[in-house]
Amino acid sequence: MKVTVLVGGVGGARFLEGARERFGVTPFPDRDGAPPADGAAGTGENTVTAVVNVGDDAWMHGVRICPDLDTCMYTLGGGIDTERGWGHRNETWHAKEELAKYGADPDWFGLGDRDLATHLIRTQMLSSGYPLTEVTAALCNRWQPGVRLLPATDGRHETHVVVADPASDDGAKKAIHFQEWWVRYRADIETFGFAQVGGADGTGSGKAQASRTAIAAIEDADVVFLAPSNPIVSIGAILSVGGIRAALRTTRAKVVGVSPVIGGAPLRGMADRCLEVLGIETSAQAIGEHFGARSGNGILDGWLVSNDNGADAAVDIPGLPVAAVPLLMSSPQATAAMIDAGLELVGL
Amino acid sequence: MKVTVLVGGVGGARFLEGARERFGVTPFPDRDGAPPADGAAGTGENTVTAVVNVGDDAWMHGVRICPDLDTCMYTLGGGIDTERGWGHRNETWHAKEELAKYGADPDWFGLGDRDLATHLIRTQMLSSGYPLTEVTAALCNRWQPGVRLLPATDGRHETHVVVADPASDDGAKKAIHFQEWWVRYRADIETFGFAQVGGADGTGSGKAQASRTAIAAIEDADVVFLAPSNPIVSIGAILSVGGIRAALRTTRAKVVGVSPVIGGAPLRGMADRCLEVLGIETSAQAIGEHFGARSGNGILDGWLVSNDNGADAAVDIPGLPVAAVPLLMSSPQATAAMIDAGLELVGL
Repeated sequence: MKVTVLVGGVGGARFLEGARERFGVTPFPDRDGAPPADGAAGTGENTVTAVVNVGDDAWMHGVRICPDLDTCMYTLGGGIDTERGWGHRNETWHAKEELAKYGADPDWFGLGDRDLATHLIRTQMLSSGYPLTEVTAALCNRWQPGVRLLPATDGRHETHVVVADPASDDGAKKAIHFQEWWVRYRADIETFGFAQVGGADGTGSGKAQASRTAIAAIEDADVVFLAPSNPIVSIGAILSVGGIRAALRTTRAKVVGVSPVIGGAPLRGMADRCLEVLGIETSAQAIGEHFGARSGNGILDGWLVSNDNGADAAVDIPGLPVAAVPLLMSSPQATAAMIDAGLELVGL
Repeated sequence: MKVTVLVGGVGGARFLEGARERFGVTPFPDRDGAPPADGAAGTGENTVTAVVNVGDDAWMHGVRICPDLDTCMYTLGGGIDTERGWGHRNETWHAKEELAKYGADPDWFGLGDRDLATHLIRTQMLSSGYPLTEVTAALCNRWQPGVRLLPATDGRHETHVVVADPASDDGAKKAIHFQEWWVRYRADIETFGFAQVGGADGTGSGKAQASRTAIAAIEDADVVFLAPSNPIVSIGAILSVGGIRAALRTTRAKVVGVSPVIGGAPLRGMADRCLEVLGIETSAQAIGEHFGARSGNGILDGWLVSNDNGADAAVDIPGLPVAAVPLLMSSPQATAAMIDAGLELVGL
């Protein structure tokens, strides 16, 4: 079975651990070390391909940082700091300390010394003209995540956030990078909306298009899962890449969404704050309606919701099959069971 | 008195500590934080300006590394690892470890985590179009070295070394970066010569020209010292920058060289190996002849040699005043005394 998953960072990585548990290891990069070919998804065996959010990506101190790609890569490669949920195990912060002593901005971003090696290699390869898809394959050659990791786009597609300018006292608005909103302000600042900044060539004009490889991964799949990642700034940022939504609408695959809401609240990642900005209730009902049924104008063929809350389990969306199951990803095995429930829901 | 010193790394930094001891602190960057103006050398007070070798500079892992500038900056700013003689105190090597795990070349270069912060800032500023002279001033704004540090050129002027290709068994020659020769091979490889690679615009064509600021520092000085740095790959690399040699020939300043030979051998830095490649004996006599008397075709008005070795103390070069004095830079005070001997030698 060809399985494709749309993922963000921590929750997405955990979902992928479950998928790897359920479907086995997918060699990545391919056994000959080549970057992934379009639609290359093995030889009849199971394959798991992740289309990863790049909306959090940023230039910091001259290096290119891809938080969600790295979180997936480190988590699946066994190098993640499991307590923090991001960055390297045994990390140190000496370069960051020194940057602060120079007074270099930004001083609020957690740039680890070990992590810097990844960013340096990525930056060099990007500067040499390699697309992010190939850069990611090269980095994964070391980490061996056991799933294919593909950035949603090789273009620039950064999430910016429109906020009340903290430096203004007359209510002026300002757009800041998502990382600044998230890490520096902990989303605790008056916020008006989100916007993608970028384009195919990084100039900030036009709209970033999905890579052919990412599109092929959706078109050629048997099933596409939306991981229980942040529905706005993770899944939503992927959906807003040119071509992704259309591919989900037309793929022969079944598309299964997994609600990020457990016990009436998102498990992590301040998803409620993002939903609130857009006037969407933090509930499986509202998020399911936001994604919508493919039989209507949406993208879902099935919607997995948590069974631990009466209101969530009573979700009712016309034309969209729903199953209420345990959604806590407490282990790869638990996540694998959740995936099975999703497959069953859409008749696979 | 306006004092200018041509310097390399460790020995040069130590000489500058003596110059700062002797002449007092020179604000750098200027008190208003501005980059140095041409010939700006205070208001009648003593000033010390270093024209620093950039022949060791290299791109490594996508960042620009300036070993001699950094050794001077860290040493005078109190941040050097005094045991190693280069790099930061309390340094860690986690980024380097990770780069090696990725299999990234070069794996033989000591890229410290704290050091990386300096390189990141420098690389960003260079990428933004700032000349190295201004980048150096910005970095020194933190370190407050107490002397003006100027790269000899804002262009690219890297020392490469022609060696017997280690991968060839038919005697093929190959040019490698000085850092590779020095750090990776410890100069212990069949070597045929040195060549500067670079140019004004970093394309590798043409010849790098000295910055106007560096030329002015030589032209407007009362005395110019050649620190007891490696006469070939430190002082020699500075002299080969376009305009430096001519400025030394025509400046109104007295030019005083300091021999790097003590007890018949260079104190550090494998200078003997570099001299040997060029067929120059490791002696104060031969190195003095190599630089030459300004009254002839050379650049020196005076030559300080060590008094601890009969052969060295007996140096005799037509037209070049010589003084034999203690040359061990055991303390800033000892170096200051050496500087006084140099001033006395040329009647200052």
